[in-house]
Amino acid sequence: MPKISEERKSARRDQILEGARRCFAEYGYEGATVAKLESEIGLSRGAIFNYFPSKEDLFIELAVRDSARMSDVWVNEGLEAVVREVMELDPAWLSVYLELFRRIRNDPSFHERIESRMRAIAPANRERIEQAQREGEFREDLSAKEIGVFVNLVLNGLAIMRAGGEELPSTDLVLTLLRDAIGPDRARMPARRSA
Amino acid sequence: MPKISEERKSARRDQILEGARRCFAEYGYEGATVAKLESEIGLSRGAIFNYFPSKEDLFIELAVRDSARMSDVWVNEGLEAVVREVMELDPAWLSVYLELFRRIRNDPSFHERIESRMRAIAPANRERIEQAQREGEFREDLSAKEIGVFVNLVLNGLAIMRAGGEELPSTDLVLTLLRDAIGPDRARMPARRSA
Repeated sequence: MPKISEERKSARRDQILEGARRCFAEYGYEGATVAKLESEIGLSRGAIFNYFPSKEDLFIELAVRDSARMSDVWVNEGLEAVVREVMELDPAWLSVYLELFRRIRNDPSFHERIESRMRAIAPANRERIEQAQREGEFREDLSAKEIGVFVNLVLNGLAIMRAGGEELPSTDLVLTLLRDAIGPDRARMPARRSA
Repeated sequence: MPKISEERKSARRDQILEGARRCFAEYGYEGATVAKLESEIGLSRGAIFNYFPSKEDLFIELAVRDSARMSDVWVNEGLEAVVREVMELDPAWLSVYLELFRRIRNDPSFHERIESRMRAIAPANRERIEQAQREGEFREDLSAKEIGVFVNLVLNGLAIMRAGGEELPSTDLVLTLLRDAIGPDRARMPARRSA
């Protein structure tokens, strides 16, 4: 077997993951059969499962990459950027998450495999929130964890509206209310009458 | 065929709906076959579909009843009660909603059937928010609709955490941040250091 460079391996992984993402989004997680994955990815099952031993591994890797990207956006570009990002996620791909909720809740090992990967991402967010607190962007009477949980509630709420094809509220409205919740005391803008 | 009183009809509808709810929660929407629905409800398919012509009708009626109950809690007992209610919803039943998101998004007639029923519920919430604004409980610089949308974002975020079996934030934290977002200007409590 010829030796494959790390670079080629990494490109191959990306190819597999992006094909799997398209396939899951189009057919749903259950509907994405091995044959459909092969066709969308353009590789044989042997080649695919050499990198990712199961469909579950493919999904977990995609979910972790999503979270890492969201975290990067939050850390490097701030709250507004992450809100905009969530509001533009692909509804078909979001539905794959929703489809898997029952399974994640009922399958402790699947749940733990995802959680353990996600835990590696959380510290960067925590530090970013603490920095925002020190700089007076966020309130200091709550912990960074508490603020993070609330922001996640709102982002999850947006994601679910997006997944359901509902009309989203304006970014401006979401940011105004979010900032009033987590901003420093008396950060609220002077009252405006909405149209 | 013997004549059935309205009262008995209504009791029968309740029996069917509660059985269907248990069945959907246990097996998922797709997994709830007609045979399983018959067994859980304790009636034949003929009797069931006499009241609800399809599985879709059963789900829509259950979803509308849920929304109406949430709306009642909000209107009659206030924000804290509705937050507590969402945090105690049955995760298995919530997963049925998540399972149907893809379908609702992709099937305009299903979507419209749900939406048209939901629109009948919205005005009561709107009025309750407007009243809370007049009484100084909620901010007045945003419309009641805008406030309602944001509360829904947070409630949906809680529901999705609950569906995924995740540990929920404390009711106290959610209410503090929600009230700071939608409460009147400078409603925020004196800063407290979190433990």
